[in-house]
Amino acid sequence: MGKPITQPSKGCRDFLPPEVKKREYVIGVIREIFEAHGFEPLQTPALERLDTLLGKYGEEGDQLIFKVLLRGQPLVEGIRAAAEHLQKPGALVSGRSGETAPGAETLLADMGLRYDQTAPLARVYAGYAGKLPQIFKCYQIQPVWRADTPGKGRFREFYQCDVDVMGSSSKLTEAELTGAASECLLKLGFQDFAVRLNHRGLLRALMRSAAVSPAQENAAITAVDKLDKIGAEGVAAELAAHGIAAETSCALIASITQEMTLDRAESLVAQFEIGAGAISELRSVLQLAEATRAAGRIRFDPTLARGLDYYTGCIFEIVSPGIASSLGGGGRYDDLIGMFSHKSAPACGISLGLERILAVMEERGLFPASLGNLDAVLAFVDEADQRAALSLAGILRAEGFRVDLRPQPVSPGKLRKYADERRVSFAVWLESGALDCASIWRRDDGKTAAELNFEKVIEFMRDHAARK
Amino acid sequence: MGKPITQPSKGCRDFLPPEVKKREYVIGVIREIFEAHGFEPLQTPALERLDTLLGKYGEEGDQLIFKVLLRGQPLVEGIRAAAEHLQKPGALVSGRSGETAPGAETLLADMGLRYDQTAPLARVYAGYAGKLPQIFKCYQIQPVWRADTPGKGRFREFYQCDVDVMGSSSKLTEAELTGAASECLLKLGFQDFAVRLNHRGLLRALMRSAAVSPAQENAAITAVDKLDKIGAEGVAAELAAHGIAAETSCALIASITQEMTLDRAESLVAQFEIGAGAISELRSVLQLAEATRAAGRIRFDPTLARGLDYYTGCIFEIVSPGIASSLGGGGRYDDLIGMFSHKSAPACGISLGLERILAVMEERGLFPASLGNLDAVLAFVDEADQRAALSLAGILRAEGFRVDLRPQPVSPGKLRKYADERRVSFAVWLESGALDCASIWRRDDGKTAAELNFEKVIEFMRDHAARK
Repeated sequence: MGKPITQPSKGCRDFLPPEVKKREYVIGVIREIFEAHGFEPLQTPALERLDTLLGKYGEEGDQLIFKVLLRGQPLVEGIRAAAEHLQKPGALVSGRSGETAPGAETLLADMGLRYDQTAPLARVYAGYAGKLPQIFKCYQIQPVWRADTPGKGRFREFYQCDVDVMGSSSKLTEAELTGAASECLLKLGFQDFAVRLNHRGLLRALMRSAAVSPAQENAAITAVDKLDKIGAEGVAAELAAHGIAAETSCALIASITQEMTLDRAESLVAQFEIGAGAISELRSVLQLAEATRAAGRIRFDPTLARGLDYYTGCIFEIVSPGIASSLGGGGRYDDLIGMFSHKSAPACGISLGLERILAVMEERGLFPASLGNLDAVLAFVDEADQRAALSLAGILRAEGFRVDLRPQPVSPGKLRKYADERRVSFAVWLESGALDCASIWRRDDGKTAAELNFEKVIEFMRDHAARK
Repeated sequence: MGKPITQPSKGCRDFLPPEVKKREYVIGVIREIFEAHGFEPLQTPALERLDTLLGKYGEEGDQLIFKVLLRGQPLVEGIRAAAEHLQKPGALVSGRSGETAPGAETLLADMGLRYDQTAPLARVYAGYAGKLPQIFKCYQIQPVWRADTPGKGRFREFYQCDVDVMGSSSKLTEAELTGAASECLLKLGFQDFAVRLNHRGLLRALMRSAAVSPAQENAAITAVDKLDKIGAEGVAAELAAHGIAAETSCALIASITQEMTLDRAESLVAQFEIGAGAISELRSVLQLAEATRAAGRIRFDPTLARGLDYYTGCIFEIVSPGIASSLGGGGRYDDLIGMFSHKSAPACGISLGLERILAVMEERGLFPASLGNLDAVLAFVDEADQRAALSLAGILRAEGFRVDLRPQPVSPGKLRKYADERRVSFAVWLESGALDCASIWRRDDGKTAAELNFEKVIEFMRDHAARK
């Protein structure tokens, strides 16, 4: 028998206590700021119906959804149907159910794992219309799963921190969302970030002015989104692959990458209604955001496109010099709720990338020195003192101290070493013979007060405790 | 086109803000108490290798694991293999890979969703042996998933709050675990609960004394575990179905269900080493637990069996009159780590059932009156005041107030109604014309102070705030 496998599954991570404490610290800060802004917490299940997930994230997104196997007799039937399906020429493995090209996957699975928090939120807002306020301000901090090839900083399970305003088209929401996200980053110690702002309507208008056909707009947006990564030439090649003429693509890239102010953009797109509207919205957001913590950081950037299909209006992305990918991003998605309801409604949100934020904080040493540290480790030298040790632990905890009682006998020397290594302020031990007495060692000065009665132990800890 | 489906997937739940706040409150209390006891937080991925999960929870457990579909070419091959497999006579749909009877499922899936937190913990303790302290005290609060038929109080996604001590066989751990769990329930407002305590070794010794063969012991434990639900006759029938003679099963049931003290149990099993050891351990735990918050609540109960295969020593279950199922349970599982490592290690844990606890607290009205309430709702009557409203919101939040800024114009009357319905202490609004002034309404007395400058608004809120 070989060594049993103890690795977590591919692309997934175990978080040992020091990592959990860091994650919880960051989540705590973000949650507090979202709540101070009046956003309310929402949680949705990890498992969603496949129909809820498919068709929201584009073709590539559909393929990256983890699907959950049918069970029992439906699985038996699914296996037969899938095997038959695969014998057809050109049969797809992945594909949407009920579409012209169903994939084998949809014959074998009924559910999938949450891919993002936006589609489930749209489902919830549509489904609980009577129970939720019409303008619903909420936040979600949950893991999402993607069947991606794992790589540096790319995981199959990772957290997103989303904050959204449903049911309002006011541009104040864009300002408040970018303001709240900026406040989170500032509170966590980020100082050099910027909020890039653009508008899908402006991008579409620029495309029209460059003569990209409406049918090619989505593909062109996806291509433009890669400008940072593949450069102008790469984008041109991708536009060509979508049948966009070289002339058109040159004009488009030039208009997007030139040093462009809002005034200049306005002159380019004023003849398109969608463009004029976008310019006016961008102006409002920029003006209002100056009254939030995004002040001085938010700036118009015509090269921002964002990858996801569902954005309709303002889009934003938070970037920081020296960090390749973004710290967060989002935008307005006024049509998504309509996919879950006959009644459409406006919506806008921003998502902070927890994993990226944690990685940068680690690099830059932005975590507080002590996160959830213990106040004391407590032990007994002799088993006869077990019960007294339990009593003392209970008394100290009732006083508000965090006390780790070691379950097996430890010598005072080893206990002090254990406390020192873990940066615990006090080591406390019971030695046989001294009834209801304990000795206490302070990490600060390395001195020991011997054989204090329990009341004196409490007093000593109160006097010398350095907890924030 | 019919109405789009907005339900969560079967057996899963959406948690709207009021529910999330209750869940977070309970989780916060439990986390605080676990941390005061020196337990450290651990998190594992939702997705585990199928090999990690299978074979840990018994045959029925294996079937209840949600499996995740393979992707791409491996899926194509899996479908062909599964279809072929199903053509064999007696082929299984569910079953372990690599066993004599593999199931079709294992040909189509590589991962599964976390079924409990104990097996992943054993994997982590075995896998990070050098990085974790040899005696590792930790807690986990995470969802688990089971492909069960949903019913009242039975969900496919639910949370468990586990606390475990790895690497120590000291009976002090049993005492501290039941003490910590009791403290959680007491802090949450439960008063009438009891901790049932038994020992797998005692059960096995009682079986030997009743002449149950060692090979039948596990099946007999599973049957005895149902005593509460199906009664003595039901258990007798199940024992008979496992080939246990009527005489033997009568003797076993009689010995377990009689009014039994530890002394009496000792006289029954003293001739079996495993029985004498169990009695001595039970005595230690009962004595030590009296120095914890489990004092006066923990009692020996020979009818407790617990369903899971992996328990080896003390087992416990927390019950409360009028509540059909338990509030929590656990026990010692000294052999589980050995399934992930060549080196075995002792371990013991207890799991609080968050969903049950929440349901009982709801019934009994045990939640605090205000959970995460806002301090103020803030609005503008005229769009011209949007930016000033954002500024005032920022100022109040910097003062530590939770302020919900409404993104669209609201009349003062509607705003007061909105605040009143949500039990928000203050409604604040800006009216055009009065530069940098706002009016503020107090829910307490229903009075309004009109047109205060921003500094006066802060002062007013500070003076009248009733936040705890």
